[in-house]
Amino acid sequence: MAGTDRSRNTALGGPAFILVEPQLGENIGACARAMLNFGLGDLRLVRPRGGWPSDKAVATSSRATEVLDNVRLHPTTAEAVADLGFVFAATARPRDMVKDDLSPRQAASRLRSLTASGTAAGILFGREAAGLGNDDVALADAVLAIPANPSFSSLNLGQAVLVIAYEWFLAGTTASDREASKATEPLGLATREELVGFFEHLEVELDVGGFLKPPEKRPRMVRNLRNLFHRAGLTGQEVRTLRGVIAALVRRRKV
Amino acid sequence: MAGTDRSRNTALGGPAFILVEPQLGENIGACARAMLNFGLGDLRLVRPRGGWPSDKAVATSSRATEVLDNVRLHPTTAEAVADLGFVFAATARPRDMVKDDLSPRQAASRLRSLTASGTAAGILFGREAAGLGNDDVALADAVLAIPANPSFSSLNLGQAVLVIAYEWFLAGTTASDREASKATEPLGLATREELVGFFEHLEVELDVGGFLKPPEKRPRMVRNLRNLFHRAGLTGQEVRTLRGVIAALVRRRKV
Repeated sequence: MAGTDRSRNTALGGPAFILVEPQLGENIGACARAMLNFGLGDLRLVRPRGGWPSDKAVATSSRATEVLDNVRLHPTTAEAVADLGFVFAATARPRDMVKDDLSPRQAASRLRSLTASGTAAGILFGREAAGLGNDDVALADAVLAIPANPSFSSLNLGQAVLVIAYEWFLAGTTASDREASKATEPLGLATREELVGFFEHLEVELDVGGFLKPPEKRPRMVRNLRNLFHRAGLTGQEVRTLRGVIAALVRRRKV
Repeated sequence: MAGTDRSRNTALGGPAFILVEPQLGENIGACARAMLNFGLGDLRLVRPRGGWPSDKAVATSSRATEVLDNVRLHPTTAEAVADLGFVFAATARPRDMVKDDLSPRQAASRLRSLTASGTAAGILFGREAAGLGNDDVALADAVLAIPANPSFSSLNLGQAVLVIAYEWFLAGTTASDREASKATEPLGLATREELVGFFEHLEVELDVGGFLKPPEKRPRMVRNLRNLFHRAGLTGQEVRTLRGVIAALVRRRKV
């Protein structure tokens, strides 16, 4: 299922494209085709509604089997992004969250420099009708919005994937771009797992300290806190430092 | 049928998108949706194989009725481009014809300047399996090729239309649009005073918790912590939240 033994079979690489609860196999197939059109191979699905594998996905993929055969399934969005150091959320709707908001072209440039510096990156795409939920967006470091006609701004899922894949491809067409961007990216961004470990550590201690109250406000408070730390683009070392900070602040509780 | 009561039609414009012998109504609907996503309204069909109108086109258009209701049918490609002053042929395969060969981005820029100067322009797209025939390409002034993975370069028809429509839209994003988008930046960034107050609060509590040791390392540790919070671009509200977090974490020290 995880296709680990096949990942070496192809020269495909690039960021992970993560579809959260896609409804239609046809759209998954269209995404696979669009990704392969632009040399991308890492497609991940979170709880596909029509099950997996999907004959309809095969039908619309136009033989993009290199991508479909290596699809990874994940039970949660958090698990799907666990190994990634930087995550974009593709979203059309404005959010009441303070995050970097990039165009596809800006995001592609960023994705190129991230991968050039060894940071695994990915893009989250929401379900066809509703887009990404706030909890999914909260897992992302930045928001990616495709500029469009304001009175008809909802792109088909495969079309949204295509725009990002196309910009990714164009952003890599000159070697000098890649060289130039290498220097600007901080090395060693924290993995999603390290970040979540830090968040949970902080939230447990805040619960003990009675901060995340009342219960109905807790989800929003947690999301806002996670968002502000996401924005900082923390390195693994910084995450360890912050965990040391928490430990130091609560130290005398225990004695 | 022509949507006479739709005043919004006047807002749609841009080059004509001409599909030559499209096979599948689904693809025509996807093209209409992609066009409307980027404010384009002039869709023309040359001998659609599945007939017209098409229920399948309606189903995949996602209510892009402004475009579908105004589709024009033509018996030949020559007739479909008769009123146009400049025509691109979208093609993946190389041709043994001497014509300008532009990328979508270059073509979009050209299309913008053509229409700005009052020249009606259009883009020809071929049938799904075979692309444009040489006789169709011969009607064009220039060739437009979408750069793609050389070993999997055939885009779905709706996807090819989307790339051109997207580039057209971006090419019209003027400096004033960019100025306007600046207004969406988060308001209420913390003042320097608020930030310093937060830093000092944190550092006092970390000294109490014995974290900022040994003394010779303190300046560097403080600098690193301040840097990571600086990077987040905190709002005033977020600074107040973080001070609440510190207070909650240290609460039990005092009791």
